Amino acid sequence: MLDSLAENSRVVIAGAGNLATSLCEALCAAGVVPQAVWSRSEASASQLAAKLGCPHTTCIDSLPDADIVITAVSDDALPTVARKLAARYGDALLVHTAGSVPMSVWPEAGACRYGVFYPMQTFSKGKSVDFSRVGIFVEASDEDGFQQLESLARRLTQKVFRATSAQRGYLHVAAVFSCNFVNAMYRMAAEVLDNRGLPFEAMLPLIDETAAKVHHLSPDEAQTGPAARGDKEILARHSAMLDGVHRDVYGLVSEYISKKQKQ
Amino acid sequence: MLDSLAENSRVVIAGAGNLATSLCEALCAAGVVPQAVWSRSEASASQLAAKLGCPHTTCIDSLPDADIVITAVSDDALPTVARKLAARYGDALLVHTAGSVPMSVWPEAGACRYGVFYPMQTFSKGKSVDFSRVGIFVEASDEDGFQQLESLARRLTQKVFRATSAQRGYLHVAAVFSCNFVNAMYRMAAEVLDNRGLPFEAMLPLIDETAAKVHHLSPDEAQTGPAARGDKEILARHSAMLDGVHRDVYGLVSEYISKKQKQ
Repeated sequence: MLDSLAENSRVVIAGAGNLATSLCEALCAAGVVPQAVWSRSEASASQLAAKLGCPHTTCIDSLPDADIVITAVSDDALPTVARKLAARYGDALLVHTAGSVPMSVWPEAGACRYGVFYPMQTFSKGKSVDFSRVGIFVEASDEDGFQQLESLARRLTQKVFRATSAQRGYLHVAAVFSCNFVNAMYRMAAEVLDNRGLPFEAMLPLIDETAAKVHHLSPDEAQTGPAARGDKEILARHSAMLDGVHRDVYGLVSEYISKKQKQ
Repeated sequence: MLDSLAENSRVVIAGAGNLATSLCEALCAAGVVPQAVWSRSEASASQLAAKLGCPHTTCIDSLPDADIVITAVSDDALPTVARKLAARYGDALLVHTAGSVPMSVWPEAGACRYGVFYPMQTFSKGKSVDFSRVGIFVEASDEDGFQQLESLARRLTQKVFRATSAQRGYLHVAAVFSCNFVNAMYRMAAEVLDNRGLPFEAMLPLIDETAAKVHHLSPDEAQTGPAARGDKEILARHSAMLDGVHRDVYGLVSEYISKKQKQ
């Protein structure tokens, strides 16, 4: 029953950015070729549609009928796109893919049936994503909607979860720490090394091991380094070697680690 | 010539912690079984020696002759251990494995020939390390010492580099950002999720992808997220959802990312 729902689901994609592209590639690989792709930009829409072998348009009103419309546009653009989609589609399930936008954006735009399809992953141009390893968090306005989204999501991954808008907000915050801020730490490391003519590549085995560790240990158990050891001499020496935001972050994060070790 | 140096090198290990254990296991796997293991703790020394099939002692003066003595003890304990080793060994090459301890700790302890053998990796109990992926940074008091260390290090990895004590200090600072602070970001994410009954495991695909990305893109190119997009509404909403050090770190790191995007 659920599988047949997905087999027959006609999917339309609104958006042609990094997330839309990765998602469409994964859907096609799972046998779900979108009915059409919409984007404000003709170039983006035609490029993605050509990749998928499906029609494209820059006019929402000319989009074909669909069971599920997945919107992957910027948070800023979403309210406007949502209004146009709600006007075009009567009973299709209208969903967005944004971590921090509540589901309520849809009824506010006049949609009847709506939801959220949030893949917890970072999407960059030129780096394809293995969706089978990605968790997808779904929310819907009704139980049928939940089942439509779960069925579609399960074509891509076994890791499908229901989450409220409030939970998804916290998932997004946690993702910012786990991904965006982690990358910022890599960036500061690269700057520290670059200032001394040392290659960032030297960090890669360490970076991989640090990520691998938390598959087996909790982040609390995996913590190492001078702050975890309470090595005040090294902390002071490092701080003196840094300046500006590097020193501020070094101080704040070391203090956090030190306090945690004492708990 | 270099290989024969390593073939014949008699290695003694001072220390039996996480780094010493990982290093000894890798040396044994490469055919270099230590002549003996020393530790202050009889239990630690005997446990590691049993694993390696070599003698152990808690008395530095009773250690056997060696060509290279590798010290992997805490930074605090190093000066004392270094003095005792310098007294025991005349012309053996005495080296330590600490990122932030300058090579000068050895002449200060009275050593004649000395150096540093710094593997850039994080070592935890119960998690064995693939040394072939680890960069090892060496420093020595003389050219023969450099060649002895390079030859030994190349038994473990192709990634062997010379680095001065000053450069190694910056490598260590960068490692703190790339590893210890990255883990602290994981920890904060876990806390944010734990407070809402959400599982940290949901972050693992994101964590892996974030680490994998910087193998192909520079950390500057790989930066994503609300601060990189300049999405002030989400930044304010996230900040309001956090408190204490989570909010402080969120503000400081987001500001860093925002400023970088404008450069």
